[in-house]
This record gives sequence, structure tokens and C-alpha cells, in this order.
Amino acid sequence: MYGYSQDSAAYIRRLRRVEGQVRGLQRMVEEDKYCIDILTQISAVTSALESVALGLLEQHLGHCVAGAIAEGGDTAAAKIKEASEAIARLVRS
Amino acid sequence: MYGYSQDSAAYIRRLRRVEGQVRGLQRMVEEDKYCIDILTQISAVTSALESVALGLLEQHLGHCVAGAIAEGGDTAAAKIKEASEAIARLVRS
Amino acid sequence: MYGYSQDSAAYIRRLRRVEGQVRGLQRMVEEDKYCIDILTQISAVTSALESVALGLLEQHLGHCVAGAIAEGGDTAAAKIKEASEAIARLVRS
Amino acid sequence: MYGYSQDSAAYIRRLRRVEGQVRGLQRMVEEDKYCIDILTQISAVTSALESVALGLLEQHLGHCVAGAIAEGGDTAAAKIKEASEAIARLVRS
Repeated sequence: MYGYSQDSAAYIRRLRRVEGQVRGLQRMVEEDKYCIDILTQISAVTSALESVALGLLEQHLGHCVAGAIAEGGDTAAAKIKEASEAIARLVRS
Repeated sequence: MYGYSQDSAAYIRRLRRVEGQVRGLQRMVEEDKYCIDILTQISAVTSALESVALGLLEQHLGHCVAGAIAEGGDTAAAKIKEASEAIARLVRS
Repeated sequence: MYGYSQDSAAYIRRLRRVEGQVRGLQRMVEEDKYCIDILTQISAVTSALESVALGLLEQHLGHCVAGAIAEGGDTAAAKIKEASEAIARLVRS
Repeated sequence: MYGYSQDSAAYIRRLRRVEGQVRGLQRMVEEDKYCIDILTQISAVTSALESVALGLLEQHLGHCVAGAIAEGGDTAAAKIKEASEAIARLVRS
């Protein structure tokens, strides 16, 4: 059980929508749609994925990281480092 | 026919791989995988989509935009403005 | 003379404002301001710089790149490749 | 006293270097340097600022947020929400 587990149905729904958007992108390429329209759709998919990531991250901080801190053991610092590295990957990607 | 049309099979293959990665994300959520591993995978998908977008954009500049400029009509300025707006969406998303 | 040269005074003004914002960031750290307020200000500076970059890029496409295409020589393809690489650095940074 | 306070001298040094880079950008525009070289330099400044932001954020999580969680009061949830919003601004800028 993680922070996001209680909302996993909602996350799966959002990711199914993203999957549908990616299939839509394939169709646009197949049907030789205008490049700029494909780019606009890619920006929309990227934003949708980022938004899923930010939701997961907030719940991760509120559960896994907060749990480790509340327990007060050595894992707290490692969890914060791990979360910070994941944030850096999101910011740079 | 657009700049990317000659490579559309390769773009579709890359987008199929992205679709598979998004399905993989759904499975990760269903199987209650660790949040940070899901975030890492989302960063990979986002990078793959950005890379598709940058490829399309380069071919768009080299064909559609270059074509409009070579023709020398009024559309050249509009094409450059349109491409610049698409670039801004990519940079900000 | 490049595409942006006619607007260089405006770009310098915008970059002076960015310089002032960066000095403001130093002051915030010196005065031990709240971390989140510093982060908000960094996001503002980053957006201002991106906006300068997008302006320069649009003028670069409209002048340097368009000029190379209109001339019809071998440099056109190289200019498009160079611009695409600069766009990729902006998208990924 | 915040998480970053112990390292404030190092942060100020990094921000002074950024200030110097921004002044360098003004000089490049004044001296009519090639657009692409200015764009490359802007990407470097943006990356340097993002790196400062990620450092501040990690220390914010490790001190302010961790402190609020350890205290166990109502502020913990608010601190996590506030940090998540700052992360979202960084990811989207």
C-alpha cells in the first residue's frame, strides 16, 4: 500500500486516456495530418503525464516520505533524497 | 505530404513503443508498484514523446517552413509564427 | 546584423530586469527568506529567460534561417539543423 | 533559520555566478553576437537556476517539511501541499 493506492482507479483511468491520446497520435501520423497539429497534441499528452506525475509525487510525499519521517529512523533522509532525485528528473525531462 | 511523411513508419513505431510504455504504467499502478519507480517511468515516456516532437519539428522546419520561404509569398511569416508558437508550447509543457 | 538586432535595446532591458531579479534572489537568501518564496521567484526568472529565448528564436528563424533558405545554398540545411539543436536544448533545460 | 541557511554562502556564490552570466547575455546582445550562441547561454543559465532550485527544495523537504511532520500537527499536510505546488511550478516553467 502506497500513498496513491486509494486513488489507483482514478490514475488508471487517466493513464487509459493518455493511451488513447497516444493511439490518436499514431492515427494522425498514418493519416498524414499537419505537423503542427501533431505537435500540439504531443504537448497535451506530455502535460497530462506531468500532471499524473505531480499527483503521485504529492501523495508519495504525504505517505511514504511522511511515514518514514514520523517513524524517525534512518530511512527518512534516504526517502527525501530519493524523492528529490525523482523531482529533478521531472524538472529536467 | 509533409516533411515527416517519408519517415511516418518510423514515427508510428516510436509511438507504438510509447503506447506500450503507457500501458506498462497502468500495470504498475494496478500492481501497486513503488511510486518512485512509476515516476521514473513517466519521465522516460515524457522524454520519448519530446524526442518525437523534436524530430517532427525539425522536419517541419526543413520542409513546410522552408517551402513557404522558398516560394516567397506571404505565408512564410505566418508559418514561422505558427512554428514558434508550437516551440513555445513544447518548451513550456 | 541578426534578426534580433533591431530589437536589441528591448532585449537588453528585459535582461537587465532578469539581472535585478537574480540580485533579488541573492538578497532573499541573505535575509533568510522562506524557501518556497525563493523557489517561486526562481520559477519567475526561469520563465522570463525562456520568454527571451523564444523571442530570439522566432527572429532567428525569420531572418538568419529564412535568409539561408531564400539564398538557396547548402547552408539552409545546416541552419535548420543548428536551430533544431538549440530548440532541443531549450525543451530539455 | 531554514534548511538552506547553513549553506547560504554557497547559494549566494552560485547566484552571483548566475548574475554574471545574465550580464554576459546583455553584452552578447549589445555586441550583436550570433543568436544561437545567445540561446545556448540562456539554456546554461536556466539549468544553473534549476539546479539552485532543486538544492533549495531538497533542503526544504529535509528541514521545514520534515520538521512539520515530526511535530505531528496540522501544518504537515499544508507544508506538503505547498511544496507540491512549488514543484509543479518548477516542472511547468
